[in-house]
Amino acid sequence: MLVSTKEIEVRYAETDQMGVVYHANYLVWMELGRTQLIKDLGFSYAQMEQDGIISPVIDINVSYKKSLRYGEVATIHTWIETYDGFRVVYGYKILTPKEEVALIGTSSHVCVKKDNFKPIIIRKKFPEWHIAYENAKKQGE
Amino acid sequence: MLVSTKEIEVRYAETDQMGVVYHANYLVWMELGRTQLIKDLGFSYAQMEQDGIISPVIDINVSYKKSLRYGEVATIHTWIETYDGFRVVYGYKILTPKEEVALIGTSSHVCVKKDNFKPIIIRKKFPEWHIAYENAKKQGE
Amino acid sequence: MLVSTKEIEVRYAETDQMGVVYHANYLVWMELGRTQLIKDLGFSYAQMEQDGIISPVIDINVSYKKSLRYGEVATIHTWIETYDGFRVVYGYKILTPKEEVALIGTSSHVCVKKDNFKPIIIRKKFPEWHIAYENAKKQGE
Amino acid sequence: MLVSTKEIEVRYAETDQMGVVYHANYLVWMELGRTQLIKDLGFSYAQMEQDGIISPVIDINVSYKKSLRYGEVATIHTWIETYDGFRVVYGYKILTPKEEVALIGTSSHVCVKKDNFKPIIIRKKFPEWHIAYENAKKQGE
Repeated sequence: MLVSTKEIEVRYAETDQMGVVYHANYLVWMELGRTQLIKDLGFSYAQMEQDGIISPVIDINVSYKKSLRYGEVATIHTWIETYDGFRVVYGYKILTPKEEVALIGTSSHVCVKKDNFKPIIIRKKFPEWHIAYENAKKQGE
Repeated sequence: MLVSTKEIEVRYAETDQMGVVYHANYLVWMELGRTQLIKDLGFSYAQMEQDGIISPVIDINVSYKKSLRYGEVATIHTWIETYDGFRVVYGYKILTPKEEVALIGTSSHVCVKKDNFKPIIIRKKFPEWHIAYENAKKQGE
Repeated sequence: MLVSTKEIEVRYAETDQMGVVYHANYLVWMELGRTQLIKDLGFSYAQMEQDGIISPVIDINVSYKKSLRYGEVATIHTWIETYDGFRVVYGYKILTPKEEVALIGTSSHVCVKKDNFKPIIIRKKFPEWHIAYENAKKQGE
Repeated sequence: MLVSTKEIEVRYAETDQMGVVYHANYLVWMELGRTQLIKDLGFSYAQMEQDGIISPVIDINVSYKKSLRYGEVATIHTWIETYDGFRVVYGYKILTPKEEVALIGTSSHVCVKKDNFKPIIIRKKFPEWHIAYENAKKQGE
């Protein structure tokens, strides 16, 4: 598959006094989209962490276009924007119930060892992930 | 000391669409009060965790009395309600800027080993904490 | 229906450095359970707020029994514990994937006007909700 | 003043199972830095909202450099990166206790009416803010 899709019901706790979803909470949703993409590719991020590897966020770029409100269901699309065997950039688009774009963004990640935060080469450490990511990236072109 | 005091500026992120602090966030504030009390007693919760012991919450009881809003500074008072060498119950009172009671509550905790969640006896494992907690409790009577 | 059921995937953001779900986040989940129960009864909490009525939490009582971890799916059961036409007490039980009890708890609520926080009588203001709540409560006995 | 400074104690609730501050929480801290800058300029964001104007985030760009842990105190520096009378871009640098850079980032904001999200011209609606922002920007050059 190319672009992963996940629906997210807005939680009351996610709103702020503007009456809309608080901007930082979209980063949590982007993580849900990323997790879904990894799942759709046949892997489990939770399992990777149990194997002693974590994948911290290196940078985040987000543009907020439309607000979302409690009672609405958002849809997040997630794909692999770039991947070079070491660093992954995920792309995200969040849609309102009316299919308007609420947010577009990217996040960059590397994989590191949990105990010392030393980077690892995905291509070497997780060859199966590497192949799946290469394929998912190509499908996106 | 008897009752520990900490001031907390309401964060925008802590509000919800009711325009007031979201109720679950008070549990975070209770933790700030608890951390301050432990600090006032001369200890460090962060250090305890580095020593491999954690202190999970066993139960929480909270009554919400008044709302708090963004732009306000709350004051949290924290004390040791009961302590028996094994289980600690902390008491909390959160005040509005006008010194009205916003919340009263308690939380119960035990100490367990971080790697296997097995309970430990505070009195035996941390005799200095034990004495300090006994004294702080007595001062509250 | 009697007891409402909702599945909740643990989010990475909901964990803390203990490696388990942070205790305050269960209050957010209890709200998801409550929202599901209201939906199962044929109503919408979001709609009620749009009509100018909010339902703040008056008190919370929670006992934590087992931890939940990232990668797990929790199940929350929610029911009406007591209801007198004015005040509702919801009951909650959260289960681990192995159907062990992770949490039991209650939350009490009244309904108030959004603009002045004055309480309203559910029985009078929302007679249809009143009947549904009475019925749901009876089914629980 | 040119660059505003605020110290932030890491909260336990802000950590995740990696054992460090969860990445989305830095956006909350950036807001604390922004609020401090506005305060240092002699204004109050809370007051602005009470006057019916809100200032939503338009975009966020963040690079994560170093982790922060529970028990540490971070320092956030905030300044006005660009300002044109309509749109403000704030710059942020978060430092670890050892004064290493943990994060650099920017956030863009406009001001809109709370009731209809229509944009307003800061220069016209808030001439005093306008002058203060112009001055703060110049000092940054």
